Amino acid sequence: MEKKLYDYEMDAIVELFLLIKSTAERKTRAGKPFLTITFQDTSGEMTGNLWDVSPEQLEMYTPSAVVHVKGKREEYNGQPQLRIDKIRLADDSEPNNPELYVKRAPLNRETMIEKLNDVIFEITNPSMNRIVRFLLNKYNKEFFHSPAAKSNHHAFNGGLAYHTISMLELAKTIEDYYPNINRSLLYAGLILHDLGKVIELSGPTATEYTLEGQLIGHIVLVDQEITKACEELKIPTDTEDVLLLRHVILAHHGQLEYGSPVRPQVKEAEIIHYLDQIDAKINMMEDDLSKTEPGDFTTKIWALENRRFYKPTITDHHAEDED
Amino acid sequence: MEKKLYDYEMDAIVELFLLIKSTAERKTRAGKPFLTITFQDTSGEMTGNLWDVSPEQLEMYTPSAVVHVKGKREEYNGQPQLRIDKIRLADDSEPNNPELYVKRAPLNRETMIEKLNDVIFEITNPSMNRIVRFLLNKYNKEFFHSPAAKSNHHAFNGGLAYHTISMLELAKTIEDYYPNINRSLLYAGLILHDLGKVIELSGPTATEYTLEGQLIGHIVLVDQEITKACEELKIPTDTEDVLLLRHVILAHHGQLEYGSPVRPQVKEAEIIHYLDQIDAKINMMEDDLSKTEPGDFTTKIWALENRRFYKPTITDHHAEDED
Amino acid sequence: MEKKLYDYEMDAIVELFLLIKSTAERKTRAGKPFLTITFQDTSGEMTGNLWDVSPEQLEMYTPSAVVHVKGKREEYNGQPQLRIDKIRLADDSEPNNPELYVKRAPLNRETMIEKLNDVIFEITNPSMNRIVRFLLNKYNKEFFHSPAAKSNHHAFNGGLAYHTISMLELAKTIEDYYPNINRSLLYAGLILHDLGKVIELSGPTATEYTLEGQLIGHIVLVDQEITKACEELKIPTDTEDVLLLRHVILAHHGQLEYGSPVRPQVKEAEIIHYLDQIDAKINMMEDDLSKTEPGDFTTKIWALENRRFYKPTITDHHAEDED
Amino acid sequence: MEKKLYDYEMDAIVELFLLIKSTAERKTRAGKPFLTITFQDTSGEMTGNLWDVSPEQLEMYTPSAVVHVKGKREEYNGQPQLRIDKIRLADDSEPNNPELYVKRAPLNRETMIEKLNDVIFEITNPSMNRIVRFLLNKYNKEFFHSPAAKSNHHAFNGGLAYHTISMLELAKTIEDYYPNINRSLLYAGLILHDLGKVIELSGPTATEYTLEGQLIGHIVLVDQEITKACEELKIPTDTEDVLLLRHVILAHHGQLEYGSPVRPQVKEAEIIHYLDQIDAKINMMEDDLSKTEPGDFTTKIWALENRRFYKPTITDHHAEDED
Amino acid sequence: MEKKLYDYEMDAIVELFLLIKSTAERKTRAGKPFLTITFQDTSGEMTGNLWDVSPEQLEMYTPSAVVHVKGKREEYNGQPQLRIDKIRLADDSEPNNPELYVKRAPLNRETMIEKLNDVIFEITNPSMNRIVRFLLNKYNKEFFHSPAAKSNHHAFNGGLAYHTISMLELAKTIEDYYPNINRSLLYAGLILHDLGKVIELSGPTATEYTLEGQLIGHIVLVDQEITKACEELKIPTDTEDVLLLRHVILAHHGQLEYGSPVRPQVKEAEIIHYLDQIDAKINMMEDDLSKTEPGDFTTKIWALENRRFYKPTITDHHAEDED
Amino acid sequence: MEKKLYDYEMDAIVELFLLIKSTAERKTRAGKPFLTITFQDTSGEMTGNLWDVSPEQLEMYTPSAVVHVKGKREEYNGQPQLRIDKIRLADDSEPNNPELYVKRAPLNRETMIEKLNDVIFEITNPSMNRIVRFLLNKYNKEFFHSPAAKSNHHAFNGGLAYHTISMLELAKTIEDYYPNINRSLLYAGLILHDLGKVIELSGPTATEYTLEGQLIGHIVLVDQEITKACEELKIPTDTEDVLLLRHVILAHHGQLEYGSPVRPQVKEAEIIHYLDQIDAKINMMEDDLSKTEPGDFTTKIWALENRRFYKPTITDHHAEDED
Repeated sequence: MEKKLYDYEMDAIVELFLLIKSTAERKTRAGKPFLTITFQDTSGEMTGNLWDVSPEQLEMYTPSAVVHVKGKREEYNGQPQLRIDKIRLADDSEPNNPELYVKRAPLNRETMIEKLNDVIFEITNPSMNRIVRFLLNKYNKEFFHSPAAKSNHHAFNGGLAYHTISMLELAKTIEDYYPNINRSLLYAGLILHDLGKVIELSGPTATEYTLEGQLIGHIVLVDQEITKACEELKIPTDTEDVLLLRHVILAHHGQLEYGSPVRPQVKEAEIIHYLDQIDAKINMMEDDLSKTEPGDFTTKIWALENRRFYKPTITDHHAEDED
Repeated sequence: MEKKLYDYEMDAIVELFLLIKSTAERKTRAGKPFLTITFQDTSGEMTGNLWDVSPEQLEMYTPSAVVHVKGKREEYNGQPQLRIDKIRLADDSEPNNPELYVKRAPLNRETMIEKLNDVIFEITNPSMNRIVRFLLNKYNKEFFHSPAAKSNHHAFNGGLAYHTISMLELAKTIEDYYPNINRSLLYAGLILHDLGKVIELSGPTATEYTLEGQLIGHIVLVDQEITKACEELKIPTDTEDVLLLRHVILAHHGQLEYGSPVRPQVKEAEIIHYLDQIDAKINMMEDDLSKTEPGDFTTKIWALENRRFYKPTITDHHAEDED
Repeated sequence: MEKKLYDYEMDAIVELFLLIKSTAERKTRAGKPFLTITFQDTSGEMTGNLWDVSPEQLEMYTPSAVVHVKGKREEYNGQPQLRIDKIRLADDSEPNNPELYVKRAPLNRETMIEKLNDVIFEITNPSMNRIVRFLLNKYNKEFFHSPAAKSNHHAFNGGLAYHTISMLELAKTIEDYYPNINRSLLYAGLILHDLGKVIELSGPTATEYTLEGQLIGHIVLVDQEITKACEELKIPTDTEDVLLLRHVILAHHGQLEYGSPVRPQVKEAEIIHYLDQIDAKINMMEDDLSKTEPGDFTTKIWALENRRFYKPTITDHHAEDED
Repeated sequence: MEKKLYDYEMDAIVELFLLIKSTAERKTRAGKPFLTITFQDTSGEMTGNLWDVSPEQLEMYTPSAVVHVKGKREEYNGQPQLRIDKIRLADDSEPNNPELYVKRAPLNRETMIEKLNDVIFEITNPSMNRIVRFLLNKYNKEFFHSPAAKSNHHAFNGGLAYHTISMLELAKTIEDYYPNINRSLLYAGLILHDLGKVIELSGPTATEYTLEGQLIGHIVLVDQEITKACEELKIPTDTEDVLLLRHVILAHHGQLEYGSPVRPQVKEAEIIHYLDQIDAKINMMEDDLSKTEPGDFTTKIWALENRRFYKPTITDHHAEDED
Repeated sequence: MEKKLYDYEMDAIVELFLLIKSTAERKTRAGKPFLTITFQDTSGEMTGNLWDVSPEQLEMYTPSAVVHVKGKREEYNGQPQLRIDKIRLADDSEPNNPELYVKRAPLNRETMIEKLNDVIFEITNPSMNRIVRFLLNKYNKEFFHSPAAKSNHHAFNGGLAYHTISMLELAKTIEDYYPNINRSLLYAGLILHDLGKVIELSGPTATEYTLEGQLIGHIVLVDQEITKACEELKIPTDTEDVLLLRHVILAHHGQLEYGSPVRPQVKEAEIIHYLDQIDAKINMMEDDLSKTEPGDFTTKIWALENRRFYKPTITDHHAEDED
Repeated sequence: MEKKLYDYEMDAIVELFLLIKSTAERKTRAGKPFLTITFQDTSGEMTGNLWDVSPEQLEMYTPSAVVHVKGKREEYNGQPQLRIDKIRLADDSEPNNPELYVKRAPLNRETMIEKLNDVIFEITNPSMNRIVRFLLNKYNKEFFHSPAAKSNHHAFNGGLAYHTISMLELAKTIEDYYPNINRSLLYAGLILHDLGKVIELSGPTATEYTLEGQLIGHIVLVDQEITKACEELKIPTDTEDVLLLRHVILAHHGQLEYGSPVRPQVKEAEIIHYLDQIDAKINMMEDDLSKTEPGDFTTKIWALENRRFYKPTITDHHAEDED
């Protein structure tokens, strides 16, 4: 397999194709221009400076360009940094499709659609079923492209859909094990719980909060979408089933201080909250652990209460069974 | 002026007309039935026991009946209690209209409507103006009857409208003094900020939370109403002015832990939050201070962080100027 | 099916066999003795007073006796109460085995042992495997009898084992879905996480904290047991695998303020914490919802941050599929 | 109108008179001296570096000097920065009075005195009236020069007096609307509430905390001043009116954790607390919004719980009425 | 030694002299009068009901009367209660001096004065020395009678002086062990730290908060006293030594949320805070442990964060050495 | 006395022997290598850069080397920094023993052993006595070398032992003054309370947390050691005396959120907690105050809730008595 950016260890000589994610023109104290380039491939991002940059280079090395870089992995202020020795644009005979360097969901869109459809089939409550289908239809494109967060977890193209699918997988076991769970409510709530993010966030690249995201927030934005769907579908918004669906979504952050306007007051709301936590947290831990050597701790992870996580040297997982 | 229930001091002989607010049939340990009656007039509520109650009495003394009571104001477990010596139904020659005994807003409905109209006239932003008028029209009856809370503040018939009017009065000065305030936003936000309570609460008598109130809450319920109004009026929900209006309402509890899904991020949101606080807290303090003797402290007020408030013996207020 | 205590509605005439869980001799103000009896069957507990109790009755009606009671379900201070009209001991021809009236795990011991053994088989790390087997052997009897808590969740005979088995079921899916999990660590940690409760609590009936439970707590008590097991088995306590096992157990309360001396710092610790939360909370909610009518809210549940949970009138669960 | 420092946009060529607020001599890594100068005018402050500074320049460019600067508005680490191309001292024919460049209260001193006197006239309680007049007399000069805080709000010459006047304006409406307020107490408390700042802070320029400010704090310092005034005026410190006056001032931070030794326990204390909040917060928001483009958010404001505030593109305020 | 009230175990027959601390006339539901009497001796307080009380008895059994009681120690709602079988006034030949039944400091006043004088002698800073002597002189009588708190700790006649002396004893060792402590500051601060309680509390019997105590609080009240003392003694209030003295007293609650208007910012302030904590907490624990059987836990102690404390069955203290 | 590193004021010419604590090879932006050296002597640490460093110098100037430095005390980003003008290795005729430059306990090991032995002699409870002696024997070397923390307090060679001895000194007075304290428990708990640090920390130089320290923490590590000691000594771990000893150690952080798995529930636990606080905090304050000029405040001290402490200009301590 091709060696990726983060497969190189500290001080190793680096030589590979990379996507330019962003650039910034800056000046040394002495006034000389240089270009700070953020490179990326599917293993992560790293920054490097191109010193004494020429005007031609400034025009050439712009976001979305794929380049070939020779250099060295170094460290600056405790952060990995790429010393650029040689850099050139990739040509057409080389892997110059930017999509190749962007992290995306490990499942392809067709698989995810199939899995979703299987689940929607089991939403037997008619109102919930219609609302879910209406909204997935309305935001079909965005749902399968949007990240699940700006940077914390599943922050990649398709992250929202993948996060939703993962939670549904967990939900199935829960639901098998505890007999009294309302499956329609659990599945419909899960599918829609973060759909507001397609409005809250600007999309999968250079993700920012939109003005709606800032002022209203994804939790109320999806409630707005359900209200509109009900108007369109002539479903009243205040029957028990619609209220329950809206409630489990409004409450999915679990506590008021995390932005839910109501606390979970039905069982399915509490379950959705925990499934969301588990999937988001495992994703965040995996992300940071993948950049950590066995026997070391990750850096502090803000969204995990500033904890650092240990990557053991011993292993014992699926792979072993497959031997 | 007629003497009211709370005008009688401890151990005084009481004799007056009262409304029965609620009753509960109970039994002594020895198995004898008695009736616990909660009486009320505009000065407040008090409970008393009717011992050895007969089946006829059980039928006669029901909620909404107006009665004439002779008895004594006593205390039980630190709470005022009415010892019932004699009780009978009020007859038609007596003040037997239940409405006479229920606390209501100090302004009548016409005055409040006039004041509201004056303010709406100054909402020059067309979308905000139309949304406000649409919703006040839709919930006209409820807006002027609903209390502003189940029990904390303005918990009386018309309390919601009166609380809104009071805040508008304060808003006018604020707005006079600080030049850059967006008046349309401030007024429209203020008028709608608690309108969700007409759905959250069951109405002015025996006020309870509705299922929608419990599961969705008045903050999101009014957002739902704005969304619906926009659909009806063909106003998009995501233009800056509508987003701002929704934001100042969603944020009016000031902090996430008090149930707002977003914190105030525009100046008018912060101002509405503080005006709400001031008017609600003054109303709560006045309520308890009105039942407290000068030189004493009120009982602990839960909604004011369990503080007790002192009622000074010295006075120095408007009334004095009017001599 | 036999009618259980909580199958009777308010004011219904009750007639059934019950176990006496506890009793208290008390006196009326007038000095007459009476006996407060707490009855139970598998649907829950209820209290009733036996007035004018005779010395013979005091001797007869003691904890662990099975009785036949005629009476009425009433309410006192908002709590259900049983008015005793007739009471007598059950005789040998009647269902007088106390075990019949005590709530217990829905799986029998053999099934639970089998499930555990299947999982232990997959703990391929030798130290973890040996420690788990050593301790389950040492506390075999207690593990299958102990409740999982004094009163909050799984507070019944076998509750600890059942809670552990339930978490293992959930763990299997998690582990299937996320590829890098250390199965030995996850399973061994799960099995032992609450084992300290066999020392912390006094057992399945009239459960109290032991002095060790109070002063040391179940989290450190199980660590003590692992230390002792290591001594016995000649396994060092400070190799990475043993440290990891101890860590995931010490950290399973998730946060310092909930009594874990360290916060989760490996992925499996975080997962165990969440699985514990989910299973315990679903169990608590089910307990209270089973005593609540559809369309009502439960009473406030202290261990769920004083929330009340709504029992919907609509249903949509497994049972329906099985029609 | 003259163009001010913050009227220039990013990358604009700057040319204007500025006051030097402070300077710092520093060295490059290579050991060459340079001077970091903080410039200011009434629109705010900005920093720039004077490279290869000569000894004569070091003597010339000192705090309080007015200079003429040509340069460019740039950005460094996300902060605005002034690149100095040319700099020289302003001469006598130019606007070289430092006072012209310092922000001050929008009302002049005479107007503020007049407004204060009007209010003092309404303090009919003799003790409160005498104490207020005694202390305003004692600290007359400082009261009209002191800022209201080191940096958070009203941090300018006359800020304390202006903050006080603004709160009094708001107080008048409050007091009009709620009938039972003790006006003497409200006005006297308001006027004195922050007077301790004249001792706590070092004055309007280069404001620092004094040792008294650090060790005692302005809340207790004004209480000390009232105690001394009472001694001087032969007023006992423990009559109800003086206790109330002291209480509303001691309690004006609203909560213990914000430094009030007692929580508000009379109505006027609660009102003063909220008026203080409103005026301080509006002032802070205005300050940051005035440096923000419409459609953007301010930077995070520490004293407003790190929130960022949005500056709408739509406007609708007084100015419009004046057309 | 005479047997005290709390020397009798549950259900024991009680026969002893007791002081009546307070009484309350009440009525049974049936309307019969009875008298609830709170008895006390130096071991604690207990309540009992005198049924069918006659008018003569009502006059006879009033607070401060010493009585002889025969009865039984019982329990009601988990609280100890005294069943009164016989009661009569103590006559002159019996121990009828109320002072004999009131808990007081274990040191007599002379000893305490001597200890204080020794310490004052070591306060070499002249201002601190003069302020301490002035205030101890001014409040001499109150200082040696006042309790140190309404009910939490040292709530007895002389408690304030005894608490102060105890802290001084601890301070001496601290001061011996850490060389750089300012002894004048430590001793003067300690002596005055709680002196405000002589104004805050109403005195040693039936202790209540005064209006000054409620509205100003003992922390600011002692600062007021120091200000007045300085005026009287012509000592400026703003020299470093006086500021330090005031600071260590203002800061002695350690944190703002416990009512100190400033946090400790000099070493001696931090030390005084901890000595206060240690002495107060040991006193509270001893109080509750003295009413607890070995092997049991105390009831929850509110002022110790609702903890219950265990009284071990093993002992190992001074007494043993003295064998 | 020899002049130490921190005896030189800002901008003073420095000339003295220093130990190299650590070094880091770095490069200027222009790519030239330089060496950042952290020097130390018993007064503290300071960093300096050796520019244009040669390969020979890189080999010569390594951690643990003693060097002679001429240079100047400067400041960089508010931190003291040493400008290196001349540097050379110390030769054998000079003070080149690294131990001379490392801060250590002010008492020598023999004195500390003696003091410990005196106290152990008073631990009359046989189990506690044997456990204490067993563990001090097992970790004898580490106990007298380990610091008491990584950086907060007593962070020097022998710091753990010295911190323990200091607390024992304070304990003796406490124990003299309050009669019912269990001396065995207090002394044994104190001696062992931080012993887990010999496993948690890597030792006195370049102190880091070990993996055991991170994953288990010193509080549970010492409990593990007591469990092992009990196994070895055939003492049961669940007798009351051993439970109490373990409890006071487990609870010594005082609150769950500070990492104790149980809160103090016996008096001696509470006392140990406070003695630990006092000694640690005085040590931290002294450390920072020793680097602060009289009349100044220290920098913010993180472990003291970010407070800054004032160093008074007035003094009044032991030293003065000794004149």
